[in-house]
Amino acid sequence: MRTEELHQPTGRVLVVVCDKGEEPVSVIGAALRRHDLRAGRVTAVGGFQQAEVGWFDRERRDYRRIPVREQVEVLSLLGDVASRDGEPVLHVHAVLGRADGSTVGGHLLSAQVWPTLEVIVTEVAPELAKRVDPETGLALIAGPGR
Amino acid sequence: MRTEELHQPTGRVLVVVCDKGEEPVSVIGAALRRHDLRAGRVTAVGGFQQAEVGWFDRERRDYRRIPVREQVEVLSLLGDVASRDGEPVLHVHAVLGRADGSTVGGHLLSAQVWPTLEVIVTEVAPELAKRVDPETGLALIAGPGR
Amino acid sequence: MRTEELHQPTGRVLVVVCDKGEEPVSVIGAALRRHDLRAGRVTAVGGFQQAEVGWFDRERRDYRRIPVREQVEVLSLLGDVASRDGEPVLHVHAVLGRADGSTVGGHLLSAQVWPTLEVIVTEVAPELAKRVDPETGLALIAGPGR
Repeated sequence: MRTEELHQPTGRVLVVVCDKGEEPVSVIGAALRRHDLRAGRVTAVGGFQQAEVGWFDRERRDYRRIPVREQVEVLSLLGDVASRDGEPVLHVHAVLGRADGSTVGGHLLSAQVWPTLEVIVTEVAPELAKRVDPETGLALIAGPGR
Repeated sequence: MRTEELHQPTGRVLVVVCDKGEEPVSVIGAALRRHDLRAGRVTAVGGFQQAEVGWFDRERRDYRRIPVREQVEVLSLLGDVASRDGEPVLHVHAVLGRADGSTVGGHLLSAQVWPTLEVIVTEVAPELAKRVDPETGLALIAGPGR
Repeated sequence: MRTEELHQPTGRVLVVVCDKGEEPVSVIGAALRRHDLRAGRVTAVGGFQQAEVGWFDRERRDYRRIPVREQVEVLSLLGDVASRDGEPVLHVHAVLGRADGSTVGGHLLSAQVWPTLEVIVTEVAPELAKRVDPETGLALIAGPGR
């Protein structure tokens, strides 16, 4: 465990509204870079007309890609922003709801918004640095003292 | 994409505890009106003894209603508050967990709380205005510049 | 319904990064005690190599335990911190994603992190007191006026 208590919240909040047809991972990433927001909590709800989510395969050290080829409610889009080499890195997971109420989810790789995605990013600190974990090849939040 | 960076967070937080038998959509709505909170992030966990969630049907331009007639854990209740005609509008999606751990979810239409629902609303700005989208008939966050 | 509007947010944010093999419920609890954080919102994403979640059985007045014996994405970990007898009490629910994108979830009883769990706790007030509910035996947030 590594913990960091932050006493200087910036108070910045970024609201991003994705429109029909937009790809949210790139859109949110562009908004983070434009506003230079490098650490925060991300939440969103809305809808996708299609998406691709991932499950990290420990053996292959890569995401197994799970296509979702139907209109789904974005029941939960949750994650964080950290930084790598001074650039914001978005890490969000999604739970998606089908027409019958059944759900599918994973690490959000890409999606196509319909009719909207309402994203709120609250900045939590100047920076949460990521470093590549040698075992997985993933960039993980390094935390204080690393 | 439309983004809005808010520099004057109000710092207001509204904690709403729903009791056994209460209907959370109306209860949270009443709390928002009472405290005149018109823009924010909403999260909650707890339990429902029954619920109705929705999936937006693009053809019919209306929600398909999915009844959930059993005791479920509220695994995630996530969404936002915006305003329409000066009144707060709640938009929350729910992921619900059944006795065997399987999940069902959608746009939260109504529910009956049991034994509790612990809701936290953090205000993010003076206002996030909604406008009716002609294509869907839904009130969507208009965002800056609209 | 009981509502409480908090005008003195502390602005404290606690970032907890759980490492491979750690048990997150105890780790987050230890971090809360170490920093004396007794009321807040909790969100996290990451992965578990195994977990146990619960569904509250109204008849038995206890959680039915649902074991998850596989690598899962933590699609959503959401909940709150309140206090009981002056100590922080963590209440979090989890939605977990399997290799095929299917989901399982419940009240998070225990888990084993792999490769990371990125937790953000934002303090919302000095204290949200819990009291034991006689009907269920559960400690529920009492709210103002109780």
